[in-house]
Amino acid sequence: MASSTDASKSGAVSPSALALPVAGVRLAAAASGQRYKNRDDLCLIEVAATGNTHCLFTTNRFSAAPVVVARRHLARAPARYLVINAGNANAGTGLQGEKAAVEICAAVARAAGCDTESVLPYSTGVIGQQLDAGRLAAQVPALMAGLRGDAWAEAAAAILTTDTRIKLRSARVRSGDHEFTVTGMTKGSGMIKPNMATMLAFVATDAAVELPALRELAAAAAARSFNAITVDGDTSTNDAFALIASGAAGNRPMADSGDANYVSLLEALDDVCAELAKDIIRDGEGATKFVSVAVRGGIAADDCAKVAYAVAESPLVKTALFASDPNWGRILAAVGRAGAQHLAIEEVDIDIGPCPIVRGGQPVPDYDEAAVARVMREVAIDIAIRIGRGSESLTVWTCDLSYDYVKINAEYRS
Amino acid sequence: MASSTDASKSGAVSPSALALPVAGVRLAAAASGQRYKNRDDLCLIEVAATGNTHCLFTTNRFSAAPVVVARRHLARAPARYLVINAGNANAGTGLQGEKAAVEICAAVARAAGCDTESVLPYSTGVIGQQLDAGRLAAQVPALMAGLRGDAWAEAAAAILTTDTRIKLRSARVRSGDHEFTVTGMTKGSGMIKPNMATMLAFVATDAAVELPALRELAAAAAARSFNAITVDGDTSTNDAFALIASGAAGNRPMADSGDANYVSLLEALDDVCAELAKDIIRDGEGATKFVSVAVRGGIAADDCAKVAYAVAESPLVKTALFASDPNWGRILAAVGRAGAQHLAIEEVDIDIGPCPIVRGGQPVPDYDEAAVARVMREVAIDIAIRIGRGSESLTVWTCDLSYDYVKINAEYRS
Repeated sequence: MASSTDASKSGAVSPSALALPVAGVRLAAAASGQRYKNRDDLCLIEVAATGNTHCLFTTNRFSAAPVVVARRHLARAPARYLVINAGNANAGTGLQGEKAAVEICAAVARAAGCDTESVLPYSTGVIGQQLDAGRLAAQVPALMAGLRGDAWAEAAAAILTTDTRIKLRSARVRSGDHEFTVTGMTKGSGMIKPNMATMLAFVATDAAVELPALRELAAAAAARSFNAITVDGDTSTNDAFALIASGAAGNRPMADSGDANYVSLLEALDDVCAELAKDIIRDGEGATKFVSVAVRGGIAADDCAKVAYAVAESPLVKTALFASDPNWGRILAAVGRAGAQHLAIEEVDIDIGPCPIVRGGQPVPDYDEAAVARVMREVAIDIAIRIGRGSESLTVWTCDLSYDYVKINAEYRS
Repeated sequence: MASSTDASKSGAVSPSALALPVAGVRLAAAASGQRYKNRDDLCLIEVAATGNTHCLFTTNRFSAAPVVVARRHLARAPARYLVINAGNANAGTGLQGEKAAVEICAAVARAAGCDTESVLPYSTGVIGQQLDAGRLAAQVPALMAGLRGDAWAEAAAAILTTDTRIKLRSARVRSGDHEFTVTGMTKGSGMIKPNMATMLAFVATDAAVELPALRELAAAAAARSFNAITVDGDTSTNDAFALIASGAAGNRPMADSGDANYVSLLEALDDVCAELAKDIIRDGEGATKFVSVAVRGGIAADDCAKVAYAVAESPLVKTALFASDPNWGRILAAVGRAGAQHLAIEEVDIDIGPCPIVRGGQPVPDYDEAAVARVMREVAIDIAIRIGRGSESLTVWTCDLSYDYVKINAEYRS
């Protein structure tokens, strides 16, 4: 994308270089020792008093306690602090869990001299265990003292669970008289099928954006990033995507999508969110391949989603991808069972990379298995599916299903 | 079930003893050598001229060629022969595949002196490869010569693919002046989520049943057996459940469910189909556990199905089951994301075996992890979920997700 700096997106740049500080946002990390030894598991984000924060949450009906509390706080006051712990999701913990989430917020509020409602709690980790809020609260003074604008890498490390690497992305965009920075971090590698929300993702910009415009920006960016990925089809109880606009850039606050700076900011935001979402897939539990499933030609958007997720989540397709086996019959079977309402078999085309596999619902006569096998051995694989002559389309990103997915989820309590 | 002989259901009885011959039905097996070496891969079933046959087929929109042809033949003539090959599904093979399926039927018809439309073809195996019909047709004379009433075990072995054992069940039921026999065989261990149909299953009775009653019997038995199992959520292109009523028992043909013998026959049929369905799960690819997910209290039947399948197909739940890890938070998360329309969180109860886990949406205060861990180490595990105060319920059978599932589906083209 032309509007963002290429260097800020390159994987070759070191993580600290990747994370451009965002004026008006400071971060800190600390170790509570609650579940993990010898690593930070607690993170605090401070937002300037000029800032606005919007958050999308999981659609899972068993929302975790921090999700319940964050929703409530967000409705009552502008957020000044976000506090995140890793290792214990504080989910399935009932009213006792909600009390623990409020207790952490209160500890931050006391130290900062703000209302408890100005603090949003986030948790990720094991479901179904009570959180020791006192243990986390004990770290609050250290967190407050450690707040720095350039602590994104430490913060990004503190929120990880089964992730194998930190996920940090930045973009800078010039728009009229202003230059905006967008920096974001995320965590997640299993229980990944965000739905109207994400895994934990925290993205900040220094732009001044009013809440209605911020809501639009968050929804638009999520639809093309965090809401278009799946590792295992399991939507977490704790998914959240917080978008912070600190206002430090000094632009006239954007009121809606008609603002002159809106499109530029959305482009930078899209860029950061899409790369963060891809980072989650690249770090998917046991993942050895990055797979794009692009469905087009749908009469209904929902049909595209059904087909894309049926293919992306099929254990048989995913194990074939792991094995680099050009077993395209499994893709065809997944398309057929997806439950799309408008699926014209005689108009279905399937391509793997540059290789046509199915045309008009029939196998191509000159199918070249050796060529498809070469494509399947790549680390990144594109599957393209046309389901009819409609104009709807959707691209979903996923990974393969390997021995290590089973190992990670069977051997460790996550 | 009181109406069926206990011995016929016991796993301790040898397979040949399990398969009670059904008067009016003969079978034979042969080896075509098309894909497998040194084993039978072809099976012929002959139905007496007095018989009726009904078949349920896959709902996958990419129906395999034999499914397309069998549907057409079944609509035109009573079935006299069913011919089944294993190793090649003849799916995703377009018009050439349909020609091959018809060619095999024609070969049987020529040898038997009947119409081609009186022969139904079935295939199972790899999707997307053309079938060598000539190679199969060459075995037809041997199949015709080998037809025997007591060849169920050989037939059940010939239809297997990645299955590790044959699946054969019988029941006998007395009803008024008549005694009816029901014997069935099935195959399937991966790509298992039958939907309005099954994997390949062939069940025969000597009862005389007219077609409308036979259709009712097939639908009722399938709903409680083949349509209530899932290994990996992948609905095959070839699923079929054929129910044969040979009429040899000499009863007055049952016209509808009001017939005096109908309920007795349905009980025996239920029994055989449920055991065959459970056999598929017990032989699920890489399965080490047999898991029952019973959902009750639904206001809508569809909500029960959504919750049951979300839990039964969750890779995270399945890997925890494999690890015997009492990680019930993953069950709770799956219930929450299932998309049930009427889900009253405050009325959700979850039990694992005899252990209460969640009551009224809250974790039970005296949760005993050690007790749950003992239950999770069992080979058969019952998960019971109440989602509200409605009267709908559904039980789904599934298995765990192990290294061997990945191995079987990654290392071998199946």
